[in-house]
Amino acid sequence: MHDSRGEQYNAAAVVGGGLIGASWTAVFLSNGMRVTVHDPRPDIEPVVRAGLRAVAPTLQELGVNVASLVEDTGSLSFDANLAAAVVDADVVQENAPERLELKQQLWAAIEAAAKPDALLASSSSALPASAIAERMRQPGRLIIAHPFNPPHLVPLVEVVPGPRTDPAIAERAVAFYAAMGKRPQLLRMEVPGFVANRLASALFREAVHLVSQGVVTEQQLDEIVTSSIGLRWAIAGPFQIYHLGGGPGGLPAFLEHFRRTIEETWPSLGAPSLDERTVALLSEQAQHFGGTVEQLAARRDEAIVQLIRTLREIPVPAAK
Amino acid sequence: MHDSRGEQYNAAAVVGGGLIGASWTAVFLSNGMRVTVHDPRPDIEPVVRAGLRAVAPTLQELGVNVASLVEDTGSLSFDANLAAAVVDADVVQENAPERLELKQQLWAAIEAAAKPDALLASSSSALPASAIAERMRQPGRLIIAHPFNPPHLVPLVEVVPGPRTDPAIAERAVAFYAAMGKRPQLLRMEVPGFVANRLASALFREAVHLVSQGVVTEQQLDEIVTSSIGLRWAIAGPFQIYHLGGGPGGLPAFLEHFRRTIEETWPSLGAPSLDERTVALLSEQAQHFGGTVEQLAARRDEAIVQLIRTLREIPVPAAK
Repeated sequence: MHDSRGEQYNAAAVVGGGLIGASWTAVFLSNGMRVTVHDPRPDIEPVVRAGLRAVAPTLQELGVNVASLVEDTGSLSFDANLAAAVVDADVVQENAPERLELKQQLWAAIEAAAKPDALLASSSSALPASAIAERMRQPGRLIIAHPFNPPHLVPLVEVVPGPRTDPAIAERAVAFYAAMGKRPQLLRMEVPGFVANRLASALFREAVHLVSQGVVTEQQLDEIVTSSIGLRWAIAGPFQIYHLGGGPGGLPAFLEHFRRTIEETWPSLGAPSLDERTVALLSEQAQHFGGTVEQLAARRDEAIVQLIRTLREIPVPAAK
Repeated sequence: MHDSRGEQYNAAAVVGGGLIGASWTAVFLSNGMRVTVHDPRPDIEPVVRAGLRAVAPTLQELGVNVASLVEDTGSLSFDANLAAAVVDADVVQENAPERLELKQQLWAAIEAAAKPDALLASSSSALPASAIAERMRQPGRLIIAHPFNPPHLVPLVEVVPGPRTDPAIAERAVAFYAAMGKRPQLLRMEVPGFVANRLASALFREAVHLVSQGVVTEQQLDEIVTSSIGLRWAIAGPFQIYHLGGGPGGLPAFLEHFRRTIEETWPSLGAPSLDERTVALLSEQAQHFGGTVEQLAARRDEAIVQLIRTLREIPVPAAK
């Protein structure tokens, strides 16, 4: 397949075939690419093939062609030799555990074997490209392409260059993931936790505070989110929501009016710790979610698919 | 109409007919109640009637009977005399500006005129019941019922008792707003900003930090939210999302695994100020939302309706 810049991607190497690796495998296969999976597990092939069959139904509901996920079309292979797995790849997507030493070793080996113009991306959710690339001869080739759970359904990919990453590589990565049907966003600099997880962490801190203070239960707090701010943030982000809260004057009017109120609220937010007592309380309340984890995850996945389909049908106003 | 406890509500008084008051008027009318609106504005009747006609189409899409919003069925009246407006009401919903002195005066006057068993609720988004009720003879009668913008569409109502509020009133309020088709949540205690706005404020603080540091633009941050955490939080709140992130072991396993990572992230979150420079930057970037505020608000409202309809069709697993 070709991206919007005319670059051609025929073969992908997926290094690390866990949940995230299997998910990328599904994305690449369904876009017509050949995929080679490398993973030290001896049973990686049946595990990944089962994973592909598991995600196929929901992907199909999104309009994705899943033939290569459920049948053996010859597009998918496995190679326990890392160098052999990546040698023909146009893109290498690494999904190893978040251990710096391990990722540094992998990338030194991948770089040595990969084509000089292959796109080199790590799914890392926390370790930055600058650290992972330290043992590479050309550390400027590596970029972070961080997906979100469940990665075959959630559209976002955070593309995070390191200070040494070639800007041309960053642009190339954005075009590639967009061509894969994802919604990549390019961060201008490395920041610990990147953007989405930092925002989630800030909200979670206050959530832990409110539950540990006994203001609401976990289940009540979750209901509060889904029936107000979460519902709105699926449609428009926090800035646009406040932009619309400002009336015809938009965000400038909103800030003019509420600036002091907002600034006064911030210091009153909680600073809980995840000590034994708090973890015990949160774990105890977690027994009261309706259904099993498996049932709730199936509902989440079905709901993600249906919300994406619904939002696709609602036109976004053209820029002024 | 009757709520699930068999309590009968035939007449509502809406005190303050701005956007929130007009929205409550629409909710009460469409549930078959008579509504009397009290507001000092001389042109309040045409303003509220125009507001009702404006919200009718989206409410109709949610399956609401909007006949009493668009035709003069005789259910809606206006009274510039506060005592006369509330004297027959089974429920009084006050939506005055967030000024303590004003709300205290209003509630002393409402209590003096209202029926002894009327449900007395303030839409206050910040002032707590304990402060607003200070001049009431029976401050235990007042409760906060805080809706979210746009209030005719967003399901949540935060029901917040003060320390002196009669617990029976809190339960009654929850049953009443549920009967109105809303999703009320009862907070166990007063906390500044209540729950949803505190969570939103925590996320917004980090959002302001990331934009002011130049990591992403407002529009990028909004896209990041809608295409990842916002999409998920429309379906399941932060606790359930992490519960599912923990695999079969649920939230306890998630906390066991990520507890240290999360605790380490918290101190690294930003503590921006909304100083001149930051407000100028945020206001400048707000020029780059596609479409006008009116167009974007219309899209938001249509999307809220469609997401609510979509989520209604997806079954929630029964409790274990």
